[in-house]
Amino acid sequence: MLTYKAPLRDIKFLLNDVFDYPSHFKTLRNGDNADPETVDMILQGLADFTETVLSPLYQPADEEGCHFKEGEVTTPKGFKEAYDQFVEGGWQGLSYPEEYGGMNLPMSLNLIKSEMMGTANWPWAMYPGLSTGCINTIMQYGTQEQKDVYLPKLVDGTWAGTMCLTEPQCGTDLGQVKTKADPNKDGSYTLNGTKIFISSGEHDLTENIIHIVLARLPNAPEGTKGISLFIVPKFLPDENGEIGERNGVTCGSIEHKMGISSSATCVLNFDNAIGFLIGEPHKGLKAMFTFMNTARIGTGIQGLAHCELAFQNALPYAKDRRSMRALSGTKEANKPADAIIYHADVARMLLTMKAFAEGGRSMIYHVARYGDKMAEGIATGNDKEFHKWDDKLGFFTPVIKGFLTELGIEAAKHGQQVYGGHGYIKEWGMELIARDARIATLYEGTTGVQALDLLGRKVILQSKGKVVRDYTAGIMKWCGEYALDKDMRKFVWALTKLCAEWNTLTVRIMLMARKDREIISAASEDYLMYVGYVMMGYHWARMAAVAYDKLENGGSESAEFYKAKIQTAEFYFDKILPRTSGLAESMVAPSQSMTDMEIDNYSFYDE
Amino acid sequence: MLTYKAPLRDIKFLLNDVFDYPSHFKTLRNGDNADPETVDMILQGLADFTETVLSPLYQPADEEGCHFKEGEVTTPKGFKEAYDQFVEGGWQGLSYPEEYGGMNLPMSLNLIKSEMMGTANWPWAMYPGLSTGCINTIMQYGTQEQKDVYLPKLVDGTWAGTMCLTEPQCGTDLGQVKTKADPNKDGSYTLNGTKIFISSGEHDLTENIIHIVLARLPNAPEGTKGISLFIVPKFLPDENGEIGERNGVTCGSIEHKMGISSSATCVLNFDNAIGFLIGEPHKGLKAMFTFMNTARIGTGIQGLAHCELAFQNALPYAKDRRSMRALSGTKEANKPADAIIYHADVARMLLTMKAFAEGGRSMIYHVARYGDKMAEGIATGNDKEFHKWDDKLGFFTPVIKGFLTELGIEAAKHGQQVYGGHGYIKEWGMELIARDARIATLYEGTTGVQALDLLGRKVILQSKGKVVRDYTAGIMKWCGEYALDKDMRKFVWALTKLCAEWNTLTVRIMLMARKDREIISAASEDYLMYVGYVMMGYHWARMAAVAYDKLENGGSESAEFYKAKIQTAEFYFDKILPRTSGLAESMVAPSQSMTDMEIDNYSFYDE
Repeated sequence: MLTYKAPLRDIKFLLNDVFDYPSHFKTLRNGDNADPETVDMILQGLADFTETVLSPLYQPADEEGCHFKEGEVTTPKGFKEAYDQFVEGGWQGLSYPEEYGGMNLPMSLNLIKSEMMGTANWPWAMYPGLSTGCINTIMQYGTQEQKDVYLPKLVDGTWAGTMCLTEPQCGTDLGQVKTKADPNKDGSYTLNGTKIFISSGEHDLTENIIHIVLARLPNAPEGTKGISLFIVPKFLPDENGEIGERNGVTCGSIEHKMGISSSATCVLNFDNAIGFLIGEPHKGLKAMFTFMNTARIGTGIQGLAHCELAFQNALPYAKDRRSMRALSGTKEANKPADAIIYHADVARMLLTMKAFAEGGRSMIYHVARYGDKMAEGIATGNDKEFHKWDDKLGFFTPVIKGFLTELGIEAAKHGQQVYGGHGYIKEWGMELIARDARIATLYEGTTGVQALDLLGRKVILQSKGKVVRDYTAGIMKWCGEYALDKDMRKFVWALTKLCAEWNTLTVRIMLMARKDREIISAASEDYLMYVGYVMMGYHWARMAAVAYDKLENGGSESAEFYKAKIQTAEFYFDKILPRTSGLAESMVAPSQSMTDMEIDNYSFYDE
Repeated sequence: MLTYKAPLRDIKFLLNDVFDYPSHFKTLRNGDNADPETVDMILQGLADFTETVLSPLYQPADEEGCHFKEGEVTTPKGFKEAYDQFVEGGWQGLSYPEEYGGMNLPMSLNLIKSEMMGTANWPWAMYPGLSTGCINTIMQYGTQEQKDVYLPKLVDGTWAGTMCLTEPQCGTDLGQVKTKADPNKDGSYTLNGTKIFISSGEHDLTENIIHIVLARLPNAPEGTKGISLFIVPKFLPDENGEIGERNGVTCGSIEHKMGISSSATCVLNFDNAIGFLIGEPHKGLKAMFTFMNTARIGTGIQGLAHCELAFQNALPYAKDRRSMRALSGTKEANKPADAIIYHADVARMLLTMKAFAEGGRSMIYHVARYGDKMAEGIATGNDKEFHKWDDKLGFFTPVIKGFLTELGIEAAKHGQQVYGGHGYIKEWGMELIARDARIATLYEGTTGVQALDLLGRKVILQSKGKVVRDYTAGIMKWCGEYALDKDMRKFVWALTKLCAEWNTLTVRIMLMARKDREIISAASEDYLMYVGYVMMGYHWARMAAVAYDKLENGGSESAEFYKAKIQTAEFYFDKILPRTSGLAESMVAPSQSMTDMEIDNYSFYDE
C-alpha cells in the first residue's frame, strides 16, 4: 500500500537555506502575509491534509475509477468528502486576492500545495488544479462583471473550472480547431462542437463547472489567428450569481486510460451551448498562451511528484527485502541474506530517484519566485511586470515540463524495479505510480513539443542563443567563486566544462540549421534532456555548497541531513551527469538519417 | 485496435542473407527436415495463425483478464479455441523429437515461432511457452519412464507445464526456498509449501498441468546446495498414462497485475501434493540452471516482440495524423497540416523502434543457431556438446535478456509518444504494449541480475575478460575487412573504436574491483547496456554490409528494402550508438557514492 509523507525538511531546506524565500517574500506586495509562522502553519496544514486525507484515497480510487452514466460522472468513493475538506480549509484560495475570498499568499506557496497534493494523489489534485487555469484566465482577461460573477465561487472552490482546447483532429496544432461560436442578440454566443481529453470536464465534486473554450467566430481568419475564448458554464449563473439554467454542454463519455483513472477525462459536446466572449475576438490563442508557462510548470510538478512518491515507497522495501549477500561482504550476518539496499545497483536506483526528486524540487522552487512576481503583475493589473517575469520563466518552462516529466517516468520504473516481480503487482502500488506518471509527457504539450519550444523558439528564434549565454554566464560566475574550494571544485569544474560545451553545441546547431532546417527537430529532444541534466547539476552543486556551509558554520543539529545532500550531489555528478556525453554527440548528428527514408520504405510487411 | 503482421521479409533476410541458415541447417542431424520449402511453409503457417487467430484476441483478452473462482482459472474468451488450433497444428512439437510426437525441426524455428506468437499476443504465448521449460527438464533429466509418461502429452500440447521456483520470501535468491518434500514408501514424495508468481500455474487450456517444483528433501543442506527438483502433476497419471486422481496442488489466487492480465500468475499451494524426484537429490538448482540460458533468451524475445509491435502500430498513425508543418517546408500542401512522420523528431522515435526491433531480431537469430546445437546435444544425449554451446550462449544470454527487454520498454514508450494523448487511451492499444512490456525486465531475473551475471560472472569471474577479448577480436577482424570500403568505413571505424574502449573499460573495472568489490554491482547495468548497444551496432553494421552487397550484386528487386536497411543502420550509428559515451563515463565511477550513505540517511521525513 502506497503511503506519502510530506518532505517538509527538504522543502524548508530549499525555502530557507537555498533560495532565501523570507527575503524574497519581502519584495512582494503580499509578502508580509507570508511570515515564517504562517508559512510553517500552511506547510503543516497541507502535510496533514495530504498525508491523512488524500494519500489513503489514492490506490483505492484507482481501483474504482470514475463512473459514467447518462452524462453524469461520479468520482471514486471519498473524493467528494476530501474535496469538501479542501474547500472548507480555504485551500483553493491560498494564493488568490482577498477581494475574491482568497488568502492572498504568494503564488509559490500554491505550487508547494500542488506538489504535496499531487504527490499524495495526483488524479484527485487534477480537479482543483484545472480550476486554476480558468481562474487565471478570468482574472486576467475577464470584464469586471465576469470577475464578480465567477471568481468568488471559483476561488472558494464551490465551483470548478476547465480548459477546453483539444478536438478529435487536433491537440498540439490548435489552428485546426473547428468549434464554432455564433453571436446572439443579447451579446452572448451559441457554441457548437466537440472537445476531447477535457480533464475534470464533468464530475460530482462541485455544483457548477466553468469551461474556458477555444472556438471560432463566424468568418474568423483560418488557423491560429481566428480563435477566440469563451466562458461556458455548465449551469448558467442566474441574476444572483447562483446556479440557474442547465447549459448545452454535456459529457458524451469518459476515456478509459492507462492511468489517472480517477481523474475524469471527458468528451464534451457543445450543443447550442451559451457562452460569453472573454478577451478580444480572434486573440484567444494568444491569451491562452499567457498561461502556458504556469500550466506547464504545473505539469512539471507531476514529474517531481512521481519521483518523490516512487522513492518514498521503494526505500522501505529496499531496507526490508533480503536477497543474496553484498559483493563487498556480508552486511547482516544474523539474517538469511542482506537487505537489497546494500547492493550498489539497488542503491543506484534509489539514489537516482532521490536525486531526481530533490533536484527537481529545487528547479521548481527556483522558478516559483518568478511565479510570485507574475501573480503580483496580474493582481495589480501591471501587464508589463507580468510579461517581464513570464518571459524569464519561458526559458525554464519547457525544461521543467519536458525534462522532469521524463524523469518521473524513469523514476517510477526504478521504483518498480527495486520491488522485482512485486513491482508489477497492483497491491504494492508501484505499478500505479508508473501508469500515472506516464501521462505527464503526453498532455500539456508532449516532450517533443517542449523540446521544440526550448530549442526552436526560446533558444534560436527568440534569442539566437543569448538566453543560453546569459544563463550559463550566471552558472560560470557562481562556479568561479568556488573554483579554489577543495570540497566544491569537483562540482564546479564539471559544470564549467558543461557550460562551455552547451554554448558550443547551441552554436553548432544554429550553424547547421542554416542548411538543414530539420536538424532543429532532430536535435531537440537530445537538447532538452541535455539542458535538463546540466540545469539539475547546477542545482545539485548549489545545494551541496549550502550543505557544506551549514556543516561548517551551522551547528551539528542536521549534520546527517547535510551530509546526505552532499552525497546525493556526488552521486548525481558521478552517475547521472555523464548522460550529457551521449546526448551531446547525438544531437549534432545531421537530420538526414531521420528524413531521407521514403515513408513507404519504413516497412515491407507485404512483400 | 492493435494489429500484427508477421515481418516475413525481414525474417527471411536474416535467415538467408545474413546468417545463411540453409548452410547451418546442413550441419544438424535434423537439418534435412528444414529444407527451404518446409521452412517457408512453417513461416507462412505461423504468420497465418498469429495474424488471424492470436492477434485479434490480444486487446479484448486484456480487457477481460483471467477469472479466478474456487481454485479454477478461466482464461479470456477465445484463448481455449486458439490453443486447440495450436495443438491441432502440432505447433507445440515443432522442434521436439519424433519419438515424442514432435516434428523434429531445428530449435531455431521454435524461437521464430515464439517471436511471432509473442508479438501477436504475448500473454497467450506464455501458456505454451511455459511448457517448454518443463519439457526440456524432463527430456534432459527424466527417467525413461518419466519421459514416456509425460513427454508425448506435453509435446502434443494436450498437457501443459510450469516451472515453480519463486516463494514469497525469495525470487532471485533461491537458496531461501522452503518448500519441503518428504519421501513416501513407494518412492514418491509429499510436497508442502507455497509458490508464488507461477505463470500458467492454473488454467483451462489443457486437461492436465505438469509442475516442475524446487523443494528441499529432509535434512537437505542449507542454501542453494540443498534443493531438489520434483515433477508434480495437477492430475496424477494413471497406469495408462491418462489423467487420474487430482493431486494436492491448488491455485490459491491469481495476481492483479499492471499488464499481461490474460496470463494467469498464480499462487500455488502444495498441500501434501505427490511429487516425483527428477534428477539427482540436492542438484535441482544446478539442473534448473541448465535451462537458464534458453529461458532467458525466451524472455529476451519479449523485448524484440514489443519493439516490433510498438513500431508496427505507431507507423500507420504517424502517416495518418497531421499536425503543424515540417520545419524543412510543407510536405502535404493539400492537407491542413503535414503527417507527423515528416517531423524529424517523430521519425526519430519511429526509427528507434525499428532499429531496436530489427537489430534485436538479428541478435536473437544469431544465437538461435547455438540453440540448434544445444537441442541436438539434448536429443542425442551428448552432454558435452550441449554444454559447449550452452557456454557460448552464456555470454549472449544476459545481454539479450537484459538489454532487449529494456529496449522493449523504451520502444513501447516511443510508440505511445507518437500517438500523443491517444497513446494513453486504452482503445488504441499502445498503452497495453507499454504495460505488457514492463514485466520483461522483472521476471526471469531482473535487469540487475542479468547485469551482474554478465559483468560479475561471465566477464570477470569465469573469464577474466577473455570472453570480451575474444568477441571483440571477431568484430575487429570483420571490421578490418571493410576498413577500405567507402560505404562501410563509417560503421567499422566507429565499431573498432568501441571495441578498444570496451576492453579498456573491462580492464579498468577489474582493476578497480581489487579494492572496491562493490564497483561490479555499481557498474553492472551501465556495462550491460553499453555491451548491448555495441553488440547491436555490430549487427547493424553486418546487416548494412549485406545490404550494400545485395544492392551491388543482387538485382534490383528488393532495392528499396536494402536501402532502408542501410538508412536504419546509419540512424542507429548517428542517434543510438552515442549512448555508449555516457555509459562508458558513468560505469567507471567508484562505488562510494552508492555505498557511503548510511541507510538511515536516505530520508529525513520525520524531522
